[in-house]
Amino acid sequence: MSSTLSTLTLDRCAVHTRTNKPWSLARCCEAYCSRGIGGISVWQDAAQAAGMGEARAIIESNGLRVPAYVRGGFFTAHDAADRTTALDDNRRLIDEAGVLNAEMLVLVVGATPKLSLAEARAQVAAGIEELLPHAESTGVKLAIEPLHPMYADDKSCINRTTDARAICERLASPMLGVALDVYHTWWDPAHEAEIEKLGANNQLFGFHVCDWKQNTGHLLTDRGLMGDGCIDVPGIRAMVESTGFDGMIEVEVFSESYWASDQNSYLDLIVDRLGTHT
Amino acid sequence: MSSTLSTLTLDRCAVHTRTNKPWSLARCCEAYCSRGIGGISVWQDAAQAAGMGEARAIIESNGLRVPAYVRGGFFTAHDAADRTTALDDNRRLIDEAGVLNAEMLVLVVGATPKLSLAEARAQVAAGIEELLPHAESTGVKLAIEPLHPMYADDKSCINRTTDARAICERLASPMLGVALDVYHTWWDPAHEAEIEKLGANNQLFGFHVCDWKQNTGHLLTDRGLMGDGCIDVPGIRAMVESTGFDGMIEVEVFSESYWASDQNSYLDLIVDRLGTHT
Repeated sequence: MSSTLSTLTLDRCAVHTRTNKPWSLARCCEAYCSRGIGGISVWQDAAQAAGMGEARAIIESNGLRVPAYVRGGFFTAHDAADRTTALDDNRRLIDEAGVLNAEMLVLVVGATPKLSLAEARAQVAAGIEELLPHAESTGVKLAIEPLHPMYADDKSCINRTTDARAICERLASPMLGVALDVYHTWWDPAHEAEIEKLGANNQLFGFHVCDWKQNTGHLLTDRGLMGDGCIDVPGIRAMVESTGFDGMIEVEVFSESYWASDQNSYLDLIVDRLGTHT
Repeated sequence: MSSTLSTLTLDRCAVHTRTNKPWSLARCCEAYCSRGIGGISVWQDAAQAAGMGEARAIIESNGLRVPAYVRGGFFTAHDAADRTTALDDNRRLIDEAGVLNAEMLVLVVGATPKLSLAEARAQVAAGIEELLPHAESTGVKLAIEPLHPMYADDKSCINRTTDARAICERLASPMLGVALDVYHTWWDPAHEAEIEKLGANNQLFGFHVCDWKQNTGHLLTDRGLMGDGCIDVPGIRAMVESTGFDGMIEVEVFSESYWASDQNSYLDLIVDRLGTHT
């Protein structure tokens, strides 16, 4: 695969604020900008801590693109009233994404214990359908992020690219696509075929990179940086780029151990791994 | 689903020795027998600690069925010599299963970091094909256990029932089927359809029950007992039994917290949950 791999320049890369969780939005922006990283994907907590207007000003003054605002979704609930509240929250998230000039809102679609996965999946499709007009009028794309099956209990009932793509096919809006995160999808035998189909249908909106560590110690916060684990990230990037994908390569790593380390050294390591293992 | 559910009598149930890890094979046998549990699935460590001949005698004297010997597989490796060693190990496991009158050897097929999943899957199919004649001559069935995608790094490259069944279809031996464990497969949108196909083709050899806990603390050893989590175990049992499955319902739970508790009380709880949440 590596022979077909393009050189990855930092201006095509973005880092999620959550990756450098100890840092404020302003520190993230300055640090990414100082390394020549081209973009920042903004988590709601980081933006709200700065204030939305100030957040926009900080990002613009550093000349950073914002591929994604993170994260909407969580459409599922036993009660209809809770599902309505979730839709209201999502409309606010779309508005906030618009303020930040974010290109897409990432959707972690939700799952609810004791609600069947079939019912949850139906609620997700219905929720996204109801949300789409607001996304279309605001100009913020919606990207379903299929989550690893180990999150099917309470975070996402959409666990394969196939199932995310099926919702896109059904709702058929140019504003609806998929954010592919290697952590969640790398194991899937249909991975390459699904990437090809997403590309052919202009439904591949986002591409997130990190790694799966052997002996992962925690289901949520022990991800690896590219090269720390067993995912063939360069091979997957080659698949993604062969579809004509020209979005940013987004680094999204949740890691207690990296969060506990010096964030400047960590960012240097991220930059290094973007060059050597991505 | 529960309306179509048969009453589950303990004589149709088995417990894996690993579920009561602190106990010896003899203590497991006596305890299961005393509750009226009909079977025991034997892990190699428990049998070897007793000695294979003594293990057989203990099991027979307690009148227990042995649905499964656990576990063979681990076919994948970078080096051909290691794959040959793995096949030799599997032949010994089949022989040991034969000594214990176990009905099947469960296969956890393996995965190897830095070996592509596609290559690993090919090695697994080749390994099982090579192993089948020995299984056929010994009369011990082989059951591929698809493992949850969170084990795709170093334990199993077969992560969905679909993919386990594909190998069964390809090798087409009445001695090769699938051991379905709800922990690994419950999230799969194709779950019910796959169970139906396995049943129709006489490929559903084993059925393992436990539960998926919210906020699972460890990827390997924090499983729940039926009713502790979010899996609709009775619903899945109804699916399984609607295919005509008449094998044993096997309780397989890896749990540091249950292992640390009083094993007799824990076994009483297992018996209770088999009645109320299975």
